[in-house]
Amino acid sequence: MSFTELDHQYMARAIELASKGRFTTAPNPNVGSVIVRDGEIVGEGYHRQAGGPHAEVFALRQAGHLASGATCYVTLEPCSHYGRTGPCALALVNAGVKKVIVAMLDPNPLVAGRGIQILKDAGIEVQVGLLEQQARGLNPGFLSRMERQTPYIRLKLAASLDGRIALANGKSQWISSAESRSDVQLMRAQSHAILSTATTVLADNARLTVRAEDLAISTLDDGSVRQPIRVILDRCLKLTGQELLFSQNGPIVLVHDKQFSAGFEHPLVRFIALDADESGLNLNQLMSVLAKEQINDLWVEAGAVLAGALWQAGLVDELIVYQAPVLLGDKAKAMLQLPDYQELCQAQHFAWTSVETLGPDLKLTARLKSCLPE
Amino acid sequence: MSFTELDHQYMARAIELASKGRFTTAPNPNVGSVIVRDGEIVGEGYHRQAGGPHAEVFALRQAGHLASGATCYVTLEPCSHYGRTGPCALALVNAGVKKVIVAMLDPNPLVAGRGIQILKDAGIEVQVGLLEQQARGLNPGFLSRMERQTPYIRLKLAASLDGRIALANGKSQWISSAESRSDVQLMRAQSHAILSTATTVLADNARLTVRAEDLAISTLDDGSVRQPIRVILDRCLKLTGQELLFSQNGPIVLVHDKQFSAGFEHPLVRFIALDADESGLNLNQLMSVLAKEQINDLWVEAGAVLAGALWQAGLVDELIVYQAPVLLGDKAKAMLQLPDYQELCQAQHFAWTSVETLGPDLKLTARLKSCLPE
Repeated sequence: MSFTELDHQYMARAIELASKGRFTTAPNPNVGSVIVRDGEIVGEGYHRQAGGPHAEVFALRQAGHLASGATCYVTLEPCSHYGRTGPCALALVNAGVKKVIVAMLDPNPLVAGRGIQILKDAGIEVQVGLLEQQARGLNPGFLSRMERQTPYIRLKLAASLDGRIALANGKSQWISSAESRSDVQLMRAQSHAILSTATTVLADNARLTVRAEDLAISTLDDGSVRQPIRVILDRCLKLTGQELLFSQNGPIVLVHDKQFSAGFEHPLVRFIALDADESGLNLNQLMSVLAKEQINDLWVEAGAVLAGALWQAGLVDELIVYQAPVLLGDKAKAMLQLPDYQELCQAQHFAWTSVETLGPDLKLTARLKSCLPE
Repeated sequence: MSFTELDHQYMARAIELASKGRFTTAPNPNVGSVIVRDGEIVGEGYHRQAGGPHAEVFALRQAGHLASGATCYVTLEPCSHYGRTGPCALALVNAGVKKVIVAMLDPNPLVAGRGIQILKDAGIEVQVGLLEQQARGLNPGFLSRMERQTPYIRLKLAASLDGRIALANGKSQWISSAESRSDVQLMRAQSHAILSTATTVLADNARLTVRAEDLAISTLDDGSVRQPIRVILDRCLKLTGQELLFSQNGPIVLVHDKQFSAGFEHPLVRFIALDADESGLNLNQLMSVLAKEQINDLWVEAGAVLAGALWQAGLVDELIVYQAPVLLGDKAKAMLQLPDYQELCQAQHFAWTSVETLGPDLKLTARLKSCLPE
């Protein structure tokens, strides 16, 4: 299968369009589409919100009658099922599109090739695989859930140069810079869910929401921001429902040891009971439950215990470190609780994917497993 | 005073030449010189080793009779005193040079303007201050000793991402990469002296020498490397003279509490006695003694205690961190021992001067005080 230089340009544009949905499409994937006729783009679209029209529908609407005989570029296989919207494959057929170029097949078992089949059956020429890796990069969370039945897990750590997250007395405010804190807001806003613990919520009286006023973007039409689902590990149900966390908008999931039973009712809160042992809640079980809850990607902001446990369990897909140029010394609180290694080879070396400066801080990112699960 | 574009180019070349001496000139400064006649470079030189000819002498030799009527660019004021070589100012006069452009005055009290005076008295036109900051940057150690009566102190730290320098059991080999270790060799080779402790020497059976075979350069004419002076803090004189340290070439200074008296004789070793209190040897006194010993710059490779003490005392001019992408956890050994801060403002934030990658590692450099002392 060969693609032209122009094919690459149009698909790159479709990928660019798709990324505009990154704050809002969850649990759906980011998808972009471009319709080209006689060497001119006549329609563009991207998926914005679950329940709303798909990318192809927006592009077809813009193209109008010009879609007839045109080529459609789309970053993900057009859907074949009647969900909240009609099947896009059928919409393309009805519009008289001549050719469809698709970056990647949809791993969703409801689609998985059936969209392509509808197009082919209608005599439309279909090509698959253009800029596939880039298209996969749009949706690590969606792909992880579909292909591995677990969310894509990003562990955020913020520490001093010597790996300390707070003074011995617990003080930790403003170790990292305003620029880093604002980047954290952006990362939260792009995440489907935030994972934290009751300990962190109680220690910081944390809300764990996206503060719209701290973002340079508004993600929803009314100028507000879609709030990520807050998943809080609260093994012994220490939270009472009275904390600041519960006064803020957005859904909350409290995860507890199944030996305890849920203690209060709150309009924002759902309880999930899990197995636990002496080392804590079963984290593998947690991830599998969260995937069933349709959570694509999880942004972890927690203390040294949960961070260490996720790391040690090999559950971290991406490590994101905000490192402040300050030294806090050996008495200050450690970044990560890990076992007492006896040999250096027990500690996994990894490779940085990117190193950026954020004001005075460094932002270091490492993709530990492929962000593009095969 | 105004300089032309060409003046800048010639002085930049002189600075480039000067830097070639960085492995060997200590305790002398790095100096470079260019002689230009009728728009052509007719002589170039740099100072290579104390006791050998100065930069201007090399440049004059190369220029020969063409020096007459020429302009001489030199990164430091020509010397005026009869040291191990004759005064360069006089050599320039005798060669018939017409104009001398000097980047900076020599802060050495033996010179300090007298070189310029000799030139002016002979009717030579003199201009001072071209690329002065860059010229100062060649010699932070020499300038620090002359202007602040203390060496320029670089603290080297090598740690994991979470600020750990060894496992709890002390294992620390190869936390950082081969590329970082080889950069450390280069930094050692450029340092006039290395500061470490008996504890580090005993723990690692360290030699603290420059391994010529690990360097891509030979710094001396015979293909060998000038070895930095090894300054070892050995408060209670624990070292016996039998350690690997003493089997290697290069001078050693053992610094001890004056309450103890030097225990052994060794051809490489000198003893220096200092005041001490419950927190250890007096580090301010140490620096002042080392400056009197003509030590320009000090490369500190030590454990968490000395590193923390120097940091806390505000003695560090430059911080150089080799950071390996690995997490060792809270049980592993801390990078730096500091007091138990009660407030975050007690910890000084600083700014990175450079961030480089060295293989998988990051090399982070911060100049804390001006490397160009005023």
